Amino acid sequence: MGTIGIVGGMGPMAGLRVARLIVEHTVAERDQDHPNLVVVSNPAGIVDRSEFLTNRADINPAIGIADSLARLAAAGVSVAGLACNSAHAEPIFAATLSLLKTQRIDIELLHMIDLTVEEVSRRLGAGSRVGILGTLGTIQADLYGERLRKRGFETLTLPTHADLVAIHDVVYCPIRGVKANSKRVSDWAIDTLGEAIRHLNSMGADVIILACTELPLILEQSRSNDCHQLDPSLILARALLERVAPGRWVD
Amino acid sequence: MGTIGIVGGMGPMAGLRVARLIVEHTVAERDQDHPNLVVVSNPAGIVDRSEFLTNRADINPAIGIADSLARLAAAGVSVAGLACNSAHAEPIFAATLSLLKTQRIDIELLHMIDLTVEEVSRRLGAGSRVGILGTLGTIQADLYGERLRKRGFETLTLPTHADLVAIHDVVYCPIRGVKANSKRVSDWAIDTLGEAIRHLNSMGADVIILACTELPLILEQSRSNDCHQLDPSLILARALLERVAPGRWVD
Repeated sequence: MGTIGIVGGMGPMAGLRVARLIVEHTVAERDQDHPNLVVVSNPAGIVDRSEFLTNRADINPAIGIADSLARLAAAGVSVAGLACNSAHAEPIFAATLSLLKTQRIDIELLHMIDLTVEEVSRRLGAGSRVGILGTLGTIQADLYGERLRKRGFETLTLPTHADLVAIHDVVYCPIRGVKANSKRVSDWAIDTLGEAIRHLNSMGADVIILACTELPLILEQSRSNDCHQLDPSLILARALLERVAPGRWVD
Repeated sequence: MGTIGIVGGMGPMAGLRVARLIVEHTVAERDQDHPNLVVVSNPAGIVDRSEFLTNRADINPAIGIADSLARLAAAGVSVAGLACNSAHAEPIFAATLSLLKTQRIDIELLHMIDLTVEEVSRRLGAGSRVGILGTLGTIQADLYGERLRKRGFETLTLPTHADLVAIHDVVYCPIRGVKANSKRVSDWAIDTLGEAIRHLNSMGADVIILACTELPLILEQSRSNDCHQLDPSLILARALLERVAPGRWVD
């Protein structure tokens, strides 16, 4: 049996959440029924992805991500995922793969965005409308949009720059954002995200991708039960478990 | 700055919870403000601690614990803790330290029970009554009792074997226990633990140590607010953070 690895720290709570989802969704009666799992959360070593993608930081986050993957490999990990959507933008993800190769880090790296797009294709027919909520880095990199439109989906994002900045701030604001308030998210963050979801729904979204690993942390605390949202962290968690312990995932 | 390590898997959710407590209680505005942290959760590699301590398993869990510590060290960890109370029983903890030495694993290992007993001494005067709730392994090993009585405290445990078995089952029962139901604990587990707490309170406990890392998982889901309980996982989390990032813990 292999060992699952998670590159966390982007942010720290979102990384731990992927591990938690695996534990919660594993069929188990006792500790020993659970898969082997390692989380490396070295946030200070990884440049902010959105800062890099919007040209406000020069150092590629791939360097820190590859370092975390090297640590996971040293701890015995065979297959890993990155608990961050924007880390999958081509300039970061391709550089990460390249570093794995040159540093001879032997680890299989899953691609959360590709897995999510496959899940959308399984659930919805072509022509369906897919809403996307994420940070500015993810939206500007068009991480989901390009892949989804290639498969015949229509994609929807919030219409104005102010709307997009609001969701970015829900994640990043040092006062009221999730990253700064992981123990208890602010009412403002809950309300702003809820409003954005209603907005995309009113635009006709058949499903909404929560394209930032911090956003589901808000919904968990707001007790939202909307099943029209798709959580890439959950899809990654399931794929990681399937890789080392097929058939052990329970919804 | 050092890297915090957590030996999880005993059980898996309790291990992740220690990491979560560190993230929740770190003063941080952004990802990069959080400490470096690694969790190794290799549950299948670690023999059940209670089974070993009650002579129903021959292999010392220390072997698996030392293996997890070796993986943490390989991932760059400098200071670590075990997210399991019974793993601190002398036959297991001493063997773990011995394996670290012979295998030349260079990692500082904190002692959750010693830290908790120190915390009790800070909070309460000698002669105070300390209730202890835990699995049969922890209770039979008298993990907290011996240390607390040496410092002049009176210790209280549930009076009958049936009461003790009930709390053990709250953790271990493959149908209704926490280990088998980490996503949503059973009402039976919530009720049984609540009853045990009331029982120790009625016996005059000034504080109750939740001496199994799974028990706080139940109280978190039951929304209990009793501040007369002491959570060793929280005390370990704080000590680990203080070791790598002094002054960054916020209650």
